[in-house]
Amino acid sequence: MAHIALDEKEISPIAKSPDVSTTASSEGGTKPKATCLQQHFSEESRNFQGSALKKTTRLLSNFIPLGTGRPHTELYPWTSSDANWPTSLNKPSGPEDRARVPSIYTLANALTYGTALGAPSLVQFLTEHMKSIHAPPYQDWAVCLTCGSTSALDIIFRTFTDRGDVILAEKYSYPGFIESSALAGVDIQPVDLDGQGLSPHKLGQILDQWNTLERPKPKVLYTIPSGQNPTGVTQSQERRRAIYEIAERHGLIIIEDDPYYFIQLGPNTASGGSNLESVSRQLVPSYISIDKSGRVIRLDSTSKILAPGLRAGWVTASQQVIDKYAAYHDLTTVSVSGLSQFVLHDLFNLQWGQEGFSTWLQALSLKYTQRRDITVAACHSFLPSDICSFAIPDHGMFLWVSIDLRMHPMYAAEGQMVQEWCSQVEDRILTLGLANGVQVTKGSLFFTERSSGEAELFFRLTFAAAKEQDLTEGVRIFANAVKTEFDCRGSV
Amino acid sequence: MAHIALDEKEISPIAKSPDVSTTASSEGGTKPKATCLQQHFSEESRNFQGSALKKTTRLLSNFIPLGTGRPHTELYPWTSSDANWPTSLNKPSGPEDRARVPSIYTLANALTYGTALGAPSLVQFLTEHMKSIHAPPYQDWAVCLTCGSTSALDIIFRTFTDRGDVILAEKYSYPGFIESSALAGVDIQPVDLDGQGLSPHKLGQILDQWNTLERPKPKVLYTIPSGQNPTGVTQSQERRRAIYEIAERHGLIIIEDDPYYFIQLGPNTASGGSNLESVSRQLVPSYISIDKSGRVIRLDSTSKILAPGLRAGWVTASQQVIDKYAAYHDLTTVSVSGLSQFVLHDLFNLQWGQEGFSTWLQALSLKYTQRRDITVAACHSFLPSDICSFAIPDHGMFLWVSIDLRMHPMYAAEGQMVQEWCSQVEDRILTLGLANGVQVTKGSLFFTERSSGEAELFFRLTFAAAKEQDLTEGVRIFANAVKTEFDCRGSV
Ligand SMILES: Cc1ncc(COP(=O)(O)O)c(C=O)c1O
Ligand SMILES: Cc1ncc(COP(=O)(O)O)c(C=O)c1O
Repeated sequence: MAHIALDEKEISPIAKSPDVSTTASSEGGTKPKATCLQQHFSEESRNFQGSALKKTTRLLSNFIPLGTGRPHTELYPWTSSDANWPTSLNKPSGPEDRARVPSIYTLANALTYGTALGAPSLVQFLTEHMKSIHAPPYQDWAVCLTCGSTSALDIIFRTFTDRGDVILAEKYSYPGFIESSALAGVDIQPVDLDGQGLSPHKLGQILDQWNTLERPKPKVLYTIPSGQNPTGVTQSQERRRAIYEIAERHGLIIIEDDPYYFIQLGPNTASGGSNLESVSRQLVPSYISIDKSGRVIRLDSTSKILAPGLRAGWVTASQQVIDKYAAYHDLTTVSVSGLSQFVLHDLFNLQWGQEGFSTWLQALSLKYTQRRDITVAACHSFLPSDICSFAIPDHGMFLWVSIDLRMHPMYAAEGQMVQEWCSQVEDRILTLGLANGVQVTKGSLFFTERSSGEAELFFRLTFAAAKEQDLTEGVRIFANAVKTEFDCRGSV
Repeated sequence: MAHIALDEKEISPIAKSPDVSTTASSEGGTKPKATCLQQHFSEESRNFQGSALKKTTRLLSNFIPLGTGRPHTELYPWTSSDANWPTSLNKPSGPEDRARVPSIYTLANALTYGTALGAPSLVQFLTEHMKSIHAPPYQDWAVCLTCGSTSALDIIFRTFTDRGDVILAEKYSYPGFIESSALAGVDIQPVDLDGQGLSPHKLGQILDQWNTLERPKPKVLYTIPSGQNPTGVTQSQERRRAIYEIAERHGLIIIEDDPYYFIQLGPNTASGGSNLESVSRQLVPSYISIDKSGRVIRLDSTSKILAPGLRAGWVTASQQVIDKYAAYHDLTTVSVSGLSQFVLHDLFNLQWGQEGFSTWLQALSLKYTQRRDITVAACHSFLPSDICSFAIPDHGMFLWVSIDLRMHPMYAAEGQMVQEWCSQVEDRILTLGLANGVQVTKGSLFFTERSSGEAELFFRLTFAAAKEQDLTEGVRIFANAVKTEFDCRGSV
């Protein structure tokens, strides 16, 4: 059985969490318990239990983590070998081309109340970054820091949706989005996707045929255009233009949630030249870069390209949207943590500059490409090709493995479209994997509708979280779990 | 005219903010402007403009800040003289009694996704702190970190209120609360307060006489029990018990928003022994310390006792409430910034321990006592005593100056209860103060109902934000503004 090494455990505070409620109550055996407040909860919160995905990671302890999109420490620009972090922060591991932007963000700035938009020096850096990479083709766009894209999604739901609304999204999507929409009381209208991502054809159909008498037409499309979570697919330039045209025609706002944009994976070298092989290319144009009318709200996050513990990202949109966003900051977190801003200011303005940031992103992409290649090679070696299939992603950190249920020995007898049986197969593979030392993520967590409706199961594998040398072993254990389920369990 | 010194400006990033929208649009004179999205905004957000209080501070530049409750840098435990913050963080200025809690929160922990509750080592420290100071008298209480109390209030509104609900609160209250309730679509039912804080008599009356046929009875009381914002009043022990009994009788949840609890001000020594003089006393029992049934949600913040830039605090309540709270974290900020947590862990567990934390709070209280005494002495010297009155606070950082409008030369002719005239007088005093170099906060920002209903105006003065040596001058300028308004302006 495979165990992860010590430094892996270090970055998993969840696993070691003491039972805090026990801590509090341990001295109180004779005290009464709190009265139940169920009737006090609001409509929004009454049945709200938090993130199911996050709950799965709470169970994590000694496994190769192929499940959670939590980049391994070696992928952060700050070195973790040095235990006294404050000093180590003085020497980020990136290139040292000092930018011209002066240091106008001091410790005193970091420690006092900050502004809703973010420290001016940081906002300026990110505005220049947006200008040079995306150059939104309208006048009044602006940038505001976010406390991460999860938080941004929550604020965007509050800004643009009322309970009972419908929002458009890829059929398989990020659980944080799915759960946020449930919390907001908003239904998701799934849109099919294929090897090139969200289908403009299907999107157009849905909107053209919408019965507005039954339900108001959706006014928001949520999409993850690059290295889509969970499918790993990246929309082509043509796709994006076609989808933007539909948005123009139907008055849609586009939420472009794009944390994997800069994790560009080169051509796959490990797979034996199969036709699944992806090609190297330039950065695809983002939605905001083709946004003539200011209908795109672009979310960038530092979580996948710097470090998720910062709880920092940025939103770019029209000034009116940014004003609203900043207003929400005033009454929620007020600002991004001053310390996170300080560290980002230090990295961007004092250490890296725009050039250094690019260099970092390129180096990071290379590391992810290596990790993907190792994972893909292991998948080719170990996954039973008659049962499992997957596309090789050219962005991001996810591999979406489809499992053909028709190959299951019990399929004819039990499997045909029986939701419960499918879930049982999914659970058994997951559990068997865990028992043997690998954690992967169940595809059903990403379903925007209850069932995929097809005779297939999915698992999402990530090559971001494990140590590079554990990836192959992780895939092998997962493949064995699939094989066992399809050989033996079926005939039990 | 008084100017604040350079280090004051340093902690005011707001004042120096470049016009970011200009930055973005400067290159785009020929580009179109974004389409108006007004019809896309939700019911909640449509008319939402953010915090009016925060907007007033945005105008700030070269003034003695007696307006905003933003502690001066000298009140933080980290030294700001050292510009390279990361290293300076290694030597907090507090006492150095190292605690027994081992360091189990590393840089790697800080940089990766954290848990909704907070780093176990921090939650444990705060749980012990709560146990030793407040010892909630029921079993299943727990602690969760917050991204500050403003954020906690927002989550609590979402957890406990639906649009159209009514929430009880002091007649004058924290603008963040007032604005959050407006955002949540919740009406505030004001409760009168006197020199001992919120009146249990009035509270009982309101609830006993509530017409439930007209509107569902409020189920939540929001109160700021110590050094109330804005009045500076602290509820006596008897008050708290009486109010808690009413909460029990009427099934109310109590939101105890208590950021000033530990800023205990000693007996006032500067004022000439007037009967306004406060008395020194032990910490008053908090609501949660008398909470037999788990109906109190207590909010603590690091903003006023450590540093607001951390965006960190903690909520203590029954396990069921904490579970809900953590669920909101999952889908909003995910966790408090890892760097803020790291710094707090370092301070609490490695540098201070429980003892050292207490020592810090005592030392801080002493500094605030000095600042209060200087301010009170200046008020006694400069404020016209026939027009202005105030109580000397024994907690917190605010002085609530009441101005008797009946003394205004124009009162008989124009003033009697005419809301607009009152606002004009208030604005003129504010503007005159600013013109001469002092910033104070208008009392009307704290009104939970449109008018105070009496022939008085209020200004809130804080002794937290200015440099100690500027306090007297600030009060003098303010007093002159009042005198000018009451002498000359009236006869213009
Ligand atoms: C599509 C997508 N959006 C947002 C997030 C979360 O980003 P953040 O850490 O900035 O909240 C993720 C992370 O898994 C993601 O895949
Ligand atoms: C009563 C009250 N609650 C909350 C806050 C804000 O606290 P935080 O900085 O933790 O959001 C303040 C600050 O002015 C306050 O006076």
